[in-house]
Amino acid sequence: MSEPYIGVSRPRVDAPDKVTGATRYAADGYVHGLLHARLVLSTEAHARIRAVHREDALAMPGVVAVLVAADLPLATTGTDRTAEPLAREEVVFAGQPVAMVIGETQAAAEDASELVFVELDSLQPVVDLEEAMRPGAALARLVEEAEGGGDLESIHAGVDHGRADADQEQLSGNVLDRVHRTNGDAAAAIDASDSVVSGTFRTPWVYQAYIEPQVSTAWLEPSGTLVVSTSTQGSFVTRSELARAFGLSLDRIRVVAEPLGGAFGGKFALVEPLAAGAALALRRPVRLVLTRREDFQATNPASAQVTHLRVGARKDGTFTGIEARMLVDRGSNAGWGVEGITSSLVAGPYRWQAHDVVGYGIQTNRFTFGAYRAPGAPTAAFALESLLDELAQALGLDPIELRLKNAVVEGDMGIGGNPFPTIGAVEVLEQVRDHPLWAARSTLPDDEGIGVAAGYWPGGNEPAAAVCRVDTDGTMTVVTSAVDMSGVDSGFVVIAAAAFGLSPDKVRVVHADTATGPYAGASGGSKVTYTVGRAVEGAARAARVKVLAAASQELEIAPDDLEVVDGVVRAVGAPGRSITVEELAKKTLRFGGRYEPIEGHGGSAQTVGAPSVAAHLSHVRVDRETGEVELLRHVVAQDVGRALNPALVEGQMRGGAVQGIGWALFEQLDHDEDGHLLTGSFLDYAVPVAERVPEIDTLIVEVPAPDGPFGAKGIGEAPVVAAAPAIANAVAAATGARLHELPMTPARVWRALRS
Amino acid sequence: MSEPYIGVSRPRVDAPDKVTGATRYAADGYVHGLLHARLVLSTEAHARIRAVHREDALAMPGVVAVLVAADLPLATTGTDRTAEPLAREEVVFAGQPVAMVIGETQAAAEDASELVFVELDSLQPVVDLEEAMRPGAALARLVEEAEGGGDLESIHAGVDHGRADADQEQLSGNVLDRVHRTNGDAAAAIDASDSVVSGTFRTPWVYQAYIEPQVSTAWLEPSGTLVVSTSTQGSFVTRSELARAFGLSLDRIRVVAEPLGGAFGGKFALVEPLAAGAALALRRPVRLVLTRREDFQATNPASAQVTHLRVGARKDGTFTGIEARMLVDRGSNAGWGVEGITSSLVAGPYRWQAHDVVGYGIQTNRFTFGAYRAPGAPTAAFALESLLDELAQALGLDPIELRLKNAVVEGDMGIGGNPFPTIGAVEVLEQVRDHPLWAARSTLPDDEGIGVAAGYWPGGNEPAAAVCRVDTDGTMTVVTSAVDMSGVDSGFVVIAAAAFGLSPDKVRVVHADTATGPYAGASGGSKVTYTVGRAVEGAARAARVKVLAAASQELEIAPDDLEVVDGVVRAVGAPGRSITVEELAKKTLRFGGRYEPIEGHGGSAQTVGAPSVAAHLSHVRVDRETGEVELLRHVVAQDVGRALNPALVEGQMRGGAVQGIGWALFEQLDHDEDGHLLTGSFLDYAVPVAERVPEIDTLIVEVPAPDGPFGAKGIGEAPVVAAAPAIANAVAAATGARLHELPMTPARVWRALRS
Repeated sequence: MSEPYIGVSRPRVDAPDKVTGATRYAADGYVHGLLHARLVLSTEAHARIRAVHREDALAMPGVVAVLVAADLPLATTGTDRTAEPLAREEVVFAGQPVAMVIGETQAAAEDASELVFVELDSLQPVVDLEEAMRPGAALARLVEEAEGGGDLESIHAGVDHGRADADQEQLSGNVLDRVHRTNGDAAAAIDASDSVVSGTFRTPWVYQAYIEPQVSTAWLEPSGTLVVSTSTQGSFVTRSELARAFGLSLDRIRVVAEPLGGAFGGKFALVEPLAAGAALALRRPVRLVLTRREDFQATNPASAQVTHLRVGARKDGTFTGIEARMLVDRGSNAGWGVEGITSSLVAGPYRWQAHDVVGYGIQTNRFTFGAYRAPGAPTAAFALESLLDELAQALGLDPIELRLKNAVVEGDMGIGGNPFPTIGAVEVLEQVRDHPLWAARSTLPDDEGIGVAAGYWPGGNEPAAAVCRVDTDGTMTVVTSAVDMSGVDSGFVVIAAAAFGLSPDKVRVVHADTATGPYAGASGGSKVTYTVGRAVEGAARAARVKVLAAASQELEIAPDDLEVVDGVVRAVGAPGRSITVEELAKKTLRFGGRYEPIEGHGGSAQTVGAPSVAAHLSHVRVDRETGEVELLRHVVAQDVGRALNPALVEGQMRGGAVQGIGWALFEQLDHDEDGHLLTGSFLDYAVPVAERVPEIDTLIVEVPAPDGPFGAKGIGEAPVVAAAPAIANAVAAATGARLHELPMTPARVWRALRS
Repeated sequence: MSEPYIGVSRPRVDAPDKVTGATRYAADGYVHGLLHARLVLSTEAHARIRAVHREDALAMPGVVAVLVAADLPLATTGTDRTAEPLAREEVVFAGQPVAMVIGETQAAAEDASELVFVELDSLQPVVDLEEAMRPGAALARLVEEAEGGGDLESIHAGVDHGRADADQEQLSGNVLDRVHRTNGDAAAAIDASDSVVSGTFRTPWVYQAYIEPQVSTAWLEPSGTLVVSTSTQGSFVTRSELARAFGLSLDRIRVVAEPLGGAFGGKFALVEPLAAGAALALRRPVRLVLTRREDFQATNPASAQVTHLRVGARKDGTFTGIEARMLVDRGSNAGWGVEGITSSLVAGPYRWQAHDVVGYGIQTNRFTFGAYRAPGAPTAAFALESLLDELAQALGLDPIELRLKNAVVEGDMGIGGNPFPTIGAVEVLEQVRDHPLWAARSTLPDDEGIGVAAGYWPGGNEPAAAVCRVDTDGTMTVVTSAVDMSGVDSGFVVIAAAAFGLSPDKVRVVHADTATGPYAGASGGSKVTYTVGRAVEGAARAARVKVLAAASQELEIAPDDLEVVDGVVRAVGAPGRSITVEELAKKTLRFGGRYEPIEGHGGSAQTVGAPSVAAHLSHVRVDRETGEVELLRHVVAQDVGRALNPALVEGQMRGGAVQGIGWALFEQLDHDEDGHLLTGSFLDYAVPVAERVPEIDTLIVEVPAPDGPFGAKGIGEAPVVAAAPAIANAVAAATGARLHELPMTPARVWRALRS
């Protein structure tokens, strides 16, 4: 394809402000009369609140209030985090916010928070996931939830929820959801296979580890409008959640999504109800900036999961049946879970003759489950891709050839019941097959191994809108309400530039709030470039229609005979007959002007997703004495649809791979048997640091998404999915030891080597 | 016409916030680290600046800086108020800002401003308008201007500037502009008339007398963006003026037009360059709130004018020729003046066989001329409509019948050289003719009289854009960058409601700033409802297309067979098959939604104006002993195109009439012979207070504007135009005395009665 500007690596448009420290994050804005909130967190995982003693805290100088749930003007009795930002009568995890101390200063609130005594009557904590689902198990929550999870539920559970069926399995009341998908007789298909492998795989709670802890500031305008300046992935969903929490009409709330210091799925209306509730209660501006310790304890990390998986294949490698039973730990999240999506993704980007997969959403007294980059996918891929390597070994087949034989192409039916749209599974597997590292397997020293794995993310859809406006200096502004979580602004610039015919240097992106902005859903689900980008493309094309109409009159040439090239409208085939966009804009935006403003609005509503698939190669050395896994090299090949800005695409691929390395080797949120968090700081919780990350090769594969802007699709989530199983397969290749639990810490590897 | 919601009187949408004090005006916003500016004004009308002594002021506690022109980072050497916010080497009127004291507090700046000593070398002040234009006259400005007046010039002079001709009249260098319009031999036509009348009419400088003095706050964001929160009529023109002043790119400036406390044409980039210049120089936030005294002295009131006028008619009343020579006092405004528009409007809404009118823009050492509601029109109408009554008397014709005989209709050629568009001149004259007050003329007591006069405003054009967005609660937001100076928001609500099919109660207007907003020109020229309203209509219709598309799929009915009625989309003829807009919006704005957001963008670019014409009747009693004119009753009949909200239309008609009463009887900015202002406070400058304003009857006449939204047009300016001559004609009818100068103070009337 020959569109200008597309496919050229450029610096991120937000980079200059970020590297010079000019970016103003949500915690940075000055608000007059601001009060500061500090949370009082539950010290127990499960208990009834007998009393909250606030006298000592209130007696401290500079303390304005100590708020409990009853002090917030809540309009709902639900028990999700929006509806119950502070625990009402029951605490359901250690770290749950119980009270909020409001001080004139951070220090006053901090000091006083230690004087709030929460009197608790202990209840049985539910911390073991498999135990929790057994009939008769103690319940993780005694008080029933009164309502659903609002718009957040639709965002998170809406990807692919599967279908409920009529099976009446005997389960405990902790099982809030059961998603069952079947096609054919999976057990029979497996049993009739030439080779069958199975295993149980465990993944822990994992923290999103964004750089910026969660923060929100709320105040009331004199008109009564509640303004919330916040670090969020989605301004409109935050607005609707606040409307639900406090019974406010949408037009009484204005949400300003400030530049985001990372989120990865974790920033959805967790702290906003706290700040807003305090501001509404006290009628003064209130800011809540979580400390890192609070952020570890009180937010919403990725769930732990247990996956029982069994798959079979014929001698020639053709996959037969897949059976999965997936236990998703929702913690206290009654509203939604990833059992639907993880039990869909466990089939991988492969064809199966029959399937029988079931996902369970189980409440426990650990955290409130939330989204984290490709929620449910790394866990599913870890199980499946580990077993596929075992299958290849059993059948004596090359692991990549085995995968290629079964890789889906467009039109193949997915286990969710819909045919796959365009997908580059074959292409990315071919890329890693042809990479020199794969060929190097045969010449490795002892204790080294190279593993492969593939995984995909289906990509989300959500209607979106955008506006493009050309100013009198000939530059273009893209107006969007989408939050830039992963560089999407830089993509919008290129999309608008190419669709209109203007250098990207002359395009800027401006973020609007919920009062004035065109609609955009929350940033997440790998859908922003695909959906909002499509709206930006439409807006730029609509603006182009306007500039052609004006130029047509000025040049006396029909619009169809004109083109816009690098900011100049010119006659096709006669570039000398031309007028610049800047000149036209000057003729337009003035008193007495005769042409409509060069502005356009674009809307999008794709009904087909754009899955992105990534294959990884990982080269490891395993220290048999210590069990330590050293990463030597890593390769990611990803189908990105179209690389609008290859530098940013590669950044996403590397970033995803590194977070996958975290899943593989380092990260776990551990609790003790009473549900107390043991790894609640970066001293205890290990993320991959630079020296533990190897060189990562990125192979961009372009299989254009038919409905994406210039073929582009969302690419943020796919690269995290299969990093861990590639490493696990490399460990197995190096040592013969198969790891069934993440992270693959030295202790676990050491034990596996000896088992 | 049967559109719903149109033509129903409703409260202004901004009323609740304004009456409860919730509206936050430009001076109300809190800005952290804010510094306060106070101006040092020139005490002389014309002088060279020898030195500005700042030491004493700087020595005062709390004083941050004393800035002179050289301290501001100006990028231009022009001498208009944007380019030269502080005088450089020459002061050209008493009250011109020379220095700016910046203090940590208002009080510090205020006190220190009195310690700044500006050393001036006096120059000859030019204060007599007629003297100023004579060849050899002293010049009001010795330093030549280096450039034109930027976008402001296009706004103000762009209405109708006439054409320059080749006459080489001998004039002084103070005459900056000469606009000459001729058609036929006007002198011969007049000389051949059956009746000829002539006179010289004078009007003074008049202050806009908005409630809120001019105010602006400016600061730099960490990214370097200059933000200006201000009380302005136009955010985009303010942005371009600031870009010109300081050599900044447009994307480095964000102008936020705050709710306006009145403007009437006077708020265009006068204080913004001062606040912005200080903020740029000091890199700290600076606010300048003019005191009322500063606002009187240092801003830009309506110009004084002298009009020499001669007209003739045949016995049957047919107008023959018109000759005018109009002297417009521009004060220091080298960039633009109203000589073009006033010399067009002097012909009134009437047909003339021949015309010869010339307007002169003359610089003096009084103020900087600015716009004030229908600039140049009250002056022109005062002269013409006074003479028309003399003509009627001379010919023994009824004054209204005389006017009706000559009133223009669509297609008649205007003296500007363009045919009149649709105009309701005949209709409004018929309305006042048929009003009982006109019939009451024959039964009046002595010393009472009833006068008539008509006048029009051509209406401006400017391309505009707007966005409409439907939220999940089924309400609509209109996003506009237009400043609501006269209730236009309330009109937008009705336009959007009617165009979409939603109750106005569910529509709100939100104002966007220059960073995110759709383009709208400055509010002025009676063009906002006409042009931006048209864009709002287009945006609502575009959103309606989206809602119909979604409903079509939901209901399985073709869009053309659907209608939107009061928030419900239903089958035409089968209203039971329906779905609400709210339901559709909820299906749209969600993860996995299948329809584009219900949003639309509208653009407008009318190329034909929509003149509004108003006829007045005034009933007065004149006290022959004191010369005092008492208003007993007043009638305004105005062609408003279509009354979107009759209550607001009547408000504009009454407000315009009252300001016309101010012109007629009370208001004048007087200078002494050295150019010092004598009436610089509301103690000296009389505006019409409630007890001096009579009952005002409003007669709404609807002659739809073909290109206006639902036929509506701009109506703000027309009602001020002919109030003064109606009163003058009433005074003449009561007493036989003809006044040639405004205001008709008791002293002037007393003298006229005795002359």
